Amino acid sequence: MSVLVVGSTALDSIKTPKAENPFLLGGSASHAAVAASFFSPVQLVGIVGGDFPKRYLQLYKKHGIDLAGLQIAAGKTFHWSGEYEVNMNNRRTLATELGVFADFKPELPKAWRKTPWLLLANIAPALQHHVLDQMERPKFVIADTMDLWLNVALKDLLSLLKRIDALVLNDSEARQLVGEDNIVAAAPKIHKLGPKYVIIKKGEHGAILSGPDGLFLAPAFPLKKVVDPTGAGDSFVGGLIGYLAGAKGSPGKNLRRALIYGSVTASFCCEGFGLNATTKTSRAKIEARVKTLEKMVDFR
Amino acid sequence: MSVLVVGSTALDSIKTPKAENPFLLGGSASHAAVAASFFSPVQLVGIVGGDFPKRYLQLYKKHGIDLAGLQIAAGKTFHWSGEYEVNMNNRRTLATELGVFADFKPELPKAWRKTPWLLLANIAPALQHHVLDQMERPKFVIADTMDLWLNVALKDLLSLLKRIDALVLNDSEARQLVGEDNIVAAAPKIHKLGPKYVIIKKGEHGAILSGPDGLFLAPAFPLKKVVDPTGAGDSFVGGLIGYLAGAKGSPGKNLRRALIYGSVTASFCCEGFGLNATTKTSRAKIEARVKTLEKMVDFR
Repeated sequence: MSVLVVGSTALDSIKTPKAENPFLLGGSASHAAVAASFFSPVQLVGIVGGDFPKRYLQLYKKHGIDLAGLQIAAGKTFHWSGEYEVNMNNRRTLATELGVFADFKPELPKAWRKTPWLLLANIAPALQHHVLDQMERPKFVIADTMDLWLNVALKDLLSLLKRIDALVLNDSEARQLVGEDNIVAAAPKIHKLGPKYVIIKKGEHGAILSGPDGLFLAPAFPLKKVVDPTGAGDSFVGGLIGYLAGAKGSPGKNLRRALIYGSVTASFCCEGFGLNATTKTSRAKIEARVKTLEKMVDFR
Repeated sequence: MSVLVVGSTALDSIKTPKAENPFLLGGSASHAAVAASFFSPVQLVGIVGGDFPKRYLQLYKKHGIDLAGLQIAAGKTFHWSGEYEVNMNNRRTLATELGVFADFKPELPKAWRKTPWLLLANIAPALQHHVLDQMERPKFVIADTMDLWLNVALKDLLSLLKRIDALVLNDSEARQLVGEDNIVAAAPKIHKLGPKYVIIKKGEHGAILSGPDGLFLAPAFPLKKVVDPTGAGDSFVGGLIGYLAGAKGSPGKNLRRALIYGSVTASFCCEGFGLNATTKTSRAKIEARVKTLEKMVDFR
């Protein structure tokens, strides 16, 4: 079944201690859509400017991503530039130029309103609401968010939480959202705000799923070298919902494996700048890493 | 089979944002010995002063710990005092008074020289060497260490690494030891220094085992409340070697489960000050948490 992904579509200029890469394809929706495309057909809702390179449109198409919901507006594409420190853990934003993204109003092609799987990738909660308003009873809705929205759009975010099935956020955001330093204690408090499933990302330390079947501890795939972690969280949630949409059975039954597939897809993302490594992987390579991970956690 | 544990036996005064607890039973050997005692008979080698409370000797005995190797010397027991910050992750040493520990020379009762399982808990590498020198072909030797010895006794530590089967250290120590920021890349470099098995502790994020069967990712048992993490690493390695000594089959075959038992034993340690919670647990309670952890990592 298809997954509708809405979020940011951007150009990222990324500096690390070892390299500088200007105008890579980036944005939460780009990473999530490509990640999901290994498992399911994907519909992309976003906005880019007239300067958006044709090769990036082709890249989406190469992954079978339906672009009927991608607006191409007069003006510049959203441009983010950032710099990583030596350990690749700390990131510093150098510039954020919103361009056409400043006036983005996501409009869904009519045929997409019945798409069963909806990923509200990281974007302002008001826009996530606006997309949900246009949908007709989606089967499963996952929303991602970031600290910025907790700081500047908390009210919108809190009302969104009552409309979604699963919330994805990182550990520091989970702590901030409910004012609880321990993330194991934070999870039940987040459930009380709405979502049946809470997925807390811990970067290289994996992720925790909290839901009706208790906790699930998902490891990250161990990497000897991280080239660029930008978009890893978006790839994680994209792979996750893509796997759910492609699997048989209920989301509740498949969610644990979905986190593993998300985690593995994110590991490929970290091995190249922007989407360079993600676009070079395949379902077969993902399956191989999932098998490796199964062995790495087995203690029977 | 029996486990011989050598390390520090101390009194810990621990301040947290919520409480102050003076003169708790502490030290690497105390935590490790009690943790190991849930699985195997334990022999303790250490030193305390004349001021060492009788109730702590009784506590060791309650856990069946053989004290024939515990020296009681004229003078003061090693006293450490420290303070935890709000998030319980950062620790600050307030005072270290070595007392009788300054002249500690571990001497093994003759009958203990053939003990098959040896844990060189955190203590100066020269003392770890001295204990190894007295042993007659132990079956399996695990050494723990800390950043202090990397800074002040690196040469002794490096020669020790050629004499042990498994090294246990935390993630920042692993990075420091081989000058490699990525711990997945650090593990093979540590193997080259000697140990067949390398166990890297990541605190609340679990531990990684590297050995001939590849990597094993051991989760930490998720806790809603951490009262005092002092001694958690010592409890981890104590539970680990205790489980190995009590299990049938080769260490290589049992090591993964041993990490899980170590991890679970350490989780109890974190739930009380000093050894308060560890001493209240039982093999049955440990088994119950191991079962829970099995469910929490299952994604088949």
